Amino acid sequence: MKTLQSWKHEVERSLDVFNERESMPDRLHDAMMYSLEAGGKRIRPALVYAVLETYDRPLSLGAEVAAALEMVHTYSLIHDDLPAMDDDDVRRGRPTNHRQFDEATAILAGDALLTDSFRILAETKLEAHKVVELIGLFSQAAGSRGMVGGQLDDMLAEKRADVSLETLQSIHERKTGALLVYALEAGAVLADVLPSDRAALKAFGRHLGIAFQIQDDILDVEGDEAVIGKRVGSDEQNDKTTYPKLLGLDGAKLALAREVELAEAELTSLSVKAPLLQAMLDFIVKRNH
Amino acid sequence: MKTLQSWKHEVERSLDVFNERESMPDRLHDAMMYSLEAGGKRIRPALVYAVLETYDRPLSLGAEVAAALEMVHTYSLIHDDLPAMDDDDVRRGRPTNHRQFDEATAILAGDALLTDSFRILAETKLEAHKVVELIGLFSQAAGSRGMVGGQLDDMLAEKRADVSLETLQSIHERKTGALLVYALEAGAVLADVLPSDRAALKAFGRHLGIAFQIQDDILDVEGDEAVIGKRVGSDEQNDKTTYPKLLGLDGAKLALAREVELAEAELTSLSVKAPLLQAMLDFIVKRNH
Repeated sequence: MKTLQSWKHEVERSLDVFNERESMPDRLHDAMMYSLEAGGKRIRPALVYAVLETYDRPLSLGAEVAAALEMVHTYSLIHDDLPAMDDDDVRRGRPTNHRQFDEATAILAGDALLTDSFRILAETKLEAHKVVELIGLFSQAAGSRGMVGGQLDDMLAEKRADVSLETLQSIHERKTGALLVYALEAGAVLADVLPSDRAALKAFGRHLGIAFQIQDDILDVEGDEAVIGKRVGSDEQNDKTTYPKLLGLDGAKLALAREVELAEAELTSLSVKAPLLQAMLDFIVKRNH
Repeated sequence: MKTLQSWKHEVERSLDVFNERESMPDRLHDAMMYSLEAGGKRIRPALVYAVLETYDRPLSLGAEVAAALEMVHTYSLIHDDLPAMDDDDVRRGRPTNHRQFDEATAILAGDALLTDSFRILAETKLEAHKVVELIGLFSQAAGSRGMVGGQLDDMLAEKRADVSLETLQSIHERKTGALLVYALEAGAVLADVLPSDRAALKAFGRHLGIAFQIQDDILDVEGDEAVIGKRVGSDEQNDKTTYPKLLGLDGAKLALAREVELAEAELTSLSVKAPLLQAMLDFIVKRNH
């Protein structure tokens, strides 16, 4: 997907610019950039850019939001990997932040990425009331009502065997879904779209988020270990509640198809054609890692 | 100090209102409120309120900024107390957050307090461009250029014996000073003061911050253990670089007097009388804990 590649470069340039070494301790800069540069698919920034291109707006309009999204996603991975949380030593084929540096530095690098993401958002070159809206929505998506709340409920659910489909959905909607929906809604705010388009983009984001998670769970059952870069079957071994566990593998595939259908229906309802958002959906559902 | 007491109640009411249980997992709410309610002197909110009263503006104008300040201060204490950082078991006479709950919960409670502080700031009822300014300044004071950067440099300095007065000052200016200066500057933005008053309030905040830290160091040498609630002489035992270590105890007292003088000169230069800010300065310098 050529566009995704060029968007990746776009956001990586911004991350460099917004996090200048001169303004902070070297070690903090190194730890923040170590994880920011570790790559990943940059899906959240890509969704912002996809909305902007869909409405024929310049990508530069989304530089701050794209960087902030990637910084908050990265901080959440750094803190999730800590010994007290998932205790992971490797992420994307490299030592995790606290293994490369140390635990205290990893905690502070995460804190700085989170805090600085708001500094960058506050620099968005847009009417002030829109900037306030972007910040308000972002903090809701990332905070106690969104990602952090979902992460805590996920931790609690791991200790239980009787997690319902409803609870599973609610956890994913906050833990991973909220930032994906934010990427689309922020794109709508930046591109100044019609209210009906904004609502459809948000709904698209919700279905995309669920599809993303179901596909993750399916990959854990039948993915290619060499491609996804982690042991297949780890969810089952950890007795984790997943879509395949609750619905069976075929049931999970059906549920995935259903979410894709609903997501596509939202795209069709937009006032413009949205081939790039369709391509993002295809990419997320058909990815093999 | 009666006013400080009434301001304490004011901010504690706001903290309850802004962090409703319904919007997040119970355990996350409990962990956040456990540390928010642990008390403390509430100096940062008090400085905001002192500025508002000085300019005859309603305290309600500062509710969001006051709550956000206390939330970020509290998150920094929770993360500082973690085993990977200072590894403290007790804070203000009660188990630290990770001892009362667990490490993972403490990390997430800190993350949520930090993120939610921006959600609350974004709700400030003021012209949008001022809200953006308040958020931009806040994230700078709390992030890599401010508190988090100072905390990391403080960690690195603890391992060294040759810390200069300049480095010590730079660490404190960011680790504790930045949020104190922010409290005063945010008060100036909220109260819509003259540019010259705003500059003087910021300068007052800088001197107040240094005075605060020198007094802290002096208390560690000659304070009353029963009153300050921790072992006296712990800095020396930990071979920590302090003002008394670099300047001698008398030198530190002289430096403190000098900062107080400079702070008072800034107050005198204001376009209004500022007895409450003078009282805050007296309180900070004359406190015995």
